[in-house]
Amino acid sequence: MEIGFIGLGAMGRAMASRLLSAGHRLRVWNRSPGPARDLAAEGAQAVGTPAEAFRGDVAITMLADDGAYRSIGLAGPVLDQAPRGMIHLNMATVSVELTRELAAAHAERGLIYVAAPVFGRAEVAAAGKLTIVAAGPEEALDRAAPLLDAMGQRTWRLGPEPTQAAATKIAGNFMIAAAIETISEATTLAARHGVAPETLLDLLTSSLFAAPVYKNYGAIIAGRKYQPPGFRLALGLKDVRLALAAGEAARVPLPFASVLRDAFLEAVAHGDGDLDWAAVAEVARRRAGSDGAAG
Amino acid sequence: MEIGFIGLGAMGRAMASRLLSAGHRLRVWNRSPGPARDLAAEGAQAVGTPAEAFRGDVAITMLADDGAYRSIGLAGPVLDQAPRGMIHLNMATVSVELTRELAAAHAERGLIYVAAPVFGRAEVAAAGKLTIVAAGPEEALDRAAPLLDAMGQRTWRLGPEPTQAAATKIAGNFMIAAAIETISEATTLAARHGVAPETLLDLLTSSLFAAPVYKNYGAIIAGRKYQPPGFRLALGLKDVRLALAAGEAARVPLPFASVLRDAFLEAVAHGDGDLDWAAVAEVARRRAGSDGAAG
Amino acid sequence: MEIGFIGLGAMGRAMASRLLSAGHRLRVWNRSPGPARDLAAEGAQAVGTPAEAFRGDVAITMLADDGAYRSIGLAGPVLDQAPRGMIHLNMATVSVELTRELAAAHAERGLIYVAAPVFGRAEVAAAGKLTIVAAGPEEALDRAAPLLDAMGQRTWRLGPEPTQAAATKIAGNFMIAAAIETISEATTLAARHGVAPETLLDLLTSSLFAAPVYKNYGAIIAGRKYQPPGFRLALGLKDVRLALAAGEAARVPLPFASVLRDAFLEAVAHGDGDLDWAAVAEVARRRAGSDGAAG
Amino acid sequence: MEIGFIGLGAMGRAMASRLLSAGHRLRVWNRSPGPARDLAAEGAQAVGTPAEAFRGDVAITMLADDGAYRSIGLAGPVLDQAPRGMIHLNMATVSVELTRELAAAHAERGLIYVAAPVFGRAEVAAAGKLTIVAAGPEEALDRAAPLLDAMGQRTWRLGPEPTQAAATKIAGNFMIAAAIETISEATTLAARHGVAPETLLDLLTSSLFAAPVYKNYGAIIAGRKYQPPGFRLALGLKDVRLALAAGEAARVPLPFASVLRDAFLEAVAHGDGDLDWAAVAEVARRRAGSDGAAG
Repeated sequence: MEIGFIGLGAMGRAMASRLLSAGHRLRVWNRSPGPARDLAAEGAQAVGTPAEAFRGDVAITMLADDGAYRSIGLAGPVLDQAPRGMIHLNMATVSVELTRELAAAHAERGLIYVAAPVFGRAEVAAAGKLTIVAAGPEEALDRAAPLLDAMGQRTWRLGPEPTQAAATKIAGNFMIAAAIETISEATTLAARHGVAPETLLDLLTSSLFAAPVYKNYGAIIAGRKYQPPGFRLALGLKDVRLALAAGEAARVPLPFASVLRDAFLEAVAHGDGDLDWAAVAEVARRRAGSDGAAG
Repeated sequence: MEIGFIGLGAMGRAMASRLLSAGHRLRVWNRSPGPARDLAAEGAQAVGTPAEAFRGDVAITMLADDGAYRSIGLAGPVLDQAPRGMIHLNMATVSVELTRELAAAHAERGLIYVAAPVFGRAEVAAAGKLTIVAAGPEEALDRAAPLLDAMGQRTWRLGPEPTQAAATKIAGNFMIAAAIETISEATTLAARHGVAPETLLDLLTSSLFAAPVYKNYGAIIAGRKYQPPGFRLALGLKDVRLALAAGEAARVPLPFASVLRDAFLEAVAHGDGDLDWAAVAEVARRRAGSDGAAG
Repeated sequence: MEIGFIGLGAMGRAMASRLLSAGHRLRVWNRSPGPARDLAAEGAQAVGTPAEAFRGDVAITMLADDGAYRSIGLAGPVLDQAPRGMIHLNMATVSVELTRELAAAHAERGLIYVAAPVFGRAEVAAAGKLTIVAAGPEEALDRAAPLLDAMGQRTWRLGPEPTQAAATKIAGNFMIAAAIETISEATTLAARHGVAPETLLDLLTSSLFAAPVYKNYGAIIAGRKYQPPGFRLALGLKDVRLALAAGEAARVPLPFASVLRDAFLEAVAHGDGDLDWAAVAEVARRRAGSDGAAG
Repeated sequence: MEIGFIGLGAMGRAMASRLLSAGHRLRVWNRSPGPARDLAAEGAQAVGTPAEAFRGDVAITMLADDGAYRSIGLAGPVLDQAPRGMIHLNMATVSVELTRELAAAHAERGLIYVAAPVFGRAEVAAAGKLTIVAAGPEEALDRAAPLLDAMGQRTWRLGPEPTQAAATKIAGNFMIAAAIETISEATTLAARHGVAPETLLDLLTSSLFAAPVYKNYGAIIAGRKYQPPGFRLALGLKDVRLALAAGEAARVPLPFASVLRDAFLEAVAHGDGDLDWAAVAEVARRRAGSDGAAG
């Protein structure tokens, strides 16, 4: 297929690469030109504006946040030049509010909007093993299926409304953040009573908590190795904010998300915004009066 | 071995039964006499006072809470009559403070105190598949090993201080409660955006959250089937309180535990103390203005 | 002076009326035309667009929220037609972020931006007794002083940066909301132990808490009379959100504000957004399992 | 009257001194003998055991916490030797639970229990200006009136159940703690936006918040002068715990109290337990990443 791809951060690049390998033709655009040049070496065509990439059968976007979508005109000008009937697969994690706004803007112009955010880090994307949660018109999902299959190991179809996928992704990230905070508090408590974090985690992830989220983040927290970041803490704060906003839009109080907001904000205030989001564990330690260096 | 066993609730009974099957001799005592009579039918000797059960090689206790330990004299009078060198295996979930107090009271009298609380419900206990977290003198743990092996599938040795096991069990239960609250908030949020709780949970427990705690409680919450209770919500509130107290003793703030306290207390205030503790999900729903019956 | 006045809700109208009484000439604009016609009867000139009101020596705005400012073009088009050197007194409660944005937009066009939000309800405004917190260039504050004096009993000058006044107003409203929640929790607790809310409040407002905020809101909460609203609960939620956003911008965690957010949101979810914001007390009562009608 | 007085800390001593000045005969007892000797110089009779002080017409107690009451036998042995019909005025801040327990223990022995905790610091007690909140049998309150009048400027009668006074005092202290936290968060927020804490507080305590609690604690927090403590932070944590326990007993969730618990605990974890409880403001500052010395 003819595909436009906008947003070539670590995730976007890996995903675009998978599409090239699967034989699709890509026009790619990124704010800073380096990543587009790199992909050109793999066969993509680097273009000079978002509008040039917003053509063909399908446009895929993978930008950092709501602000990035607004600033390059994806809620307006860029859409005006797109061919009617084109599908836009937004694979980023954005707000429910922006999702609603983009869906309306596309509908007005005869474009098809699909929200298809992903779970998984860059190395998972590179292996084509992402978990994709998609929502939009059934027929569009069918047409996009080969692309989604090239990038993910499984695509969950959540329904016709793009907000369904946006909310699912936001709820999932909230759950990860809550698991991280839970590990942080529990290991700080146990450590003060003479139980090493590793021991507590070995024990619990052998049975009730035998899941990747507890194993991976447990290991990071027990070892206090927050670099390089798998997912930056500042982005974690953004995602907690998305959860709170989604809750507010639907009138759902989320007390755990409120605690998370304050904890991530405290971490950012202490200069840890560029570490892995598991570094929120240092907030729990600091509040308890524990000091010492972490990597 | 000659074993005294005090506390024959659903858990205690199943554990005592395992010990009888393994060929040990048991003197059993319970506040209400029915369960002791039942075990007598399996070969145990029912005795009339806690002190009569607090004899032999090892005494095992499995009482409901700190109050039960204090009220039958296990911090004082009952110990006075026990044979020096006897091991007391306390397998209940009690406070760090009581653990410290009991350890001292035993040491003064030449008795050996081991904290060995368990993870697992009554049917797990009946199958001898409990996960046991034990702490106390190494030699006592060696001597008690055949008993622990009869009751559990694995015993984790956490160190020489009984408080290490108490804190581990408390931290573990806190983590379960936090997972339940996380599921509650996330599913309420998703539902309001058109995503069924089952869908969100299927998706997440297929990958990142593929652990029993999310699968089991997720199913209960999605189905809103809180009866019969696997673990009563009122006991859940007690356990959250133990976490807060353990935090206070060690000067560890636990903001998630504070949120849990208020949520479980709200559930009890609405008459749900005898439901499964997953019924705290109804608090999240009610706060969001959702109504309707749950079983 | 020649004054433009935009935004004639209950507050704006009362303020504009004071200015007319003090002998100033007003061009007034409001989204719905009724209030402008009423003021015309008092001598104001009703104009047809915001831009026509954004002229003369000073323009005063008193709009509901950030969105209203953006939607009528006060961050852009309207400014383009204003005379250089004109002072814009923004007397509404808006975000620190919008304040920063407006200050920059005015500076670019040679206009002078002053943030001057007010404490006080409509009847206080009608009596010219508002408390005004103003920040902006000293010389502009001097020029605007006669206007501020006509509307308020006292103007506090907080410094040269408009954000100083915005943050002060936001912090003040946060403090009021926190006092309301405090009264809500304390009276619910006391009532359950047999102490009437009135009694607790009489006692405390006779001494330590002898302040209008506790007396006024205490009376509303004790009497459960939330209508007519002095300040709508939905606006209270908005103001709590402004506090959280101001905290996030400056990296200041605000755990009380987080609790307030969830409580106000719960009140809105239960249909109480149009009651006085003291109706958040019903959230505390409901959580405690107390029922019964409130007016 | 013949009065026994137990507990001669800073508060108790000042109160006992007022009673001596009013012409009453006092038998005094304190755990450490120094204060009793000092009062003997003012005419009191120092006695060697609590039981010797628990005689005459009225016994007054002013101990630090629940534990102190239990440890000197005021829930048991000491009562056994007291004359029937004697009134016990407990003027300390203790739990609702202990209040209930003591009331029952006194009733069983034909003694009359009155809870009469006080608001005010030691210098207020020395001036006989305490605010007293009393609950117990009407006739006992009448008999004790001359004593209460000698110690306080006003006694509020809350009803026949001692728990009514205990809960009122606990609710009042919770409100003070909440005001302190509110000031802490608001001033930290304002300071980060360029508004000095003094300015914010001057402004607000000139109008809406014109109450001693905001003026006094505002000045302490703005000046960061936490020594000497008017009320120790560690006792503040104890009082927040009493509020949470009173809430739990009556099934009233108290989210603000939960936040306070974690904040005070964090302050204690950082070594500030012996400062004035307003030092919890340093927690808000630290969480926001602000440093610097405080006195």
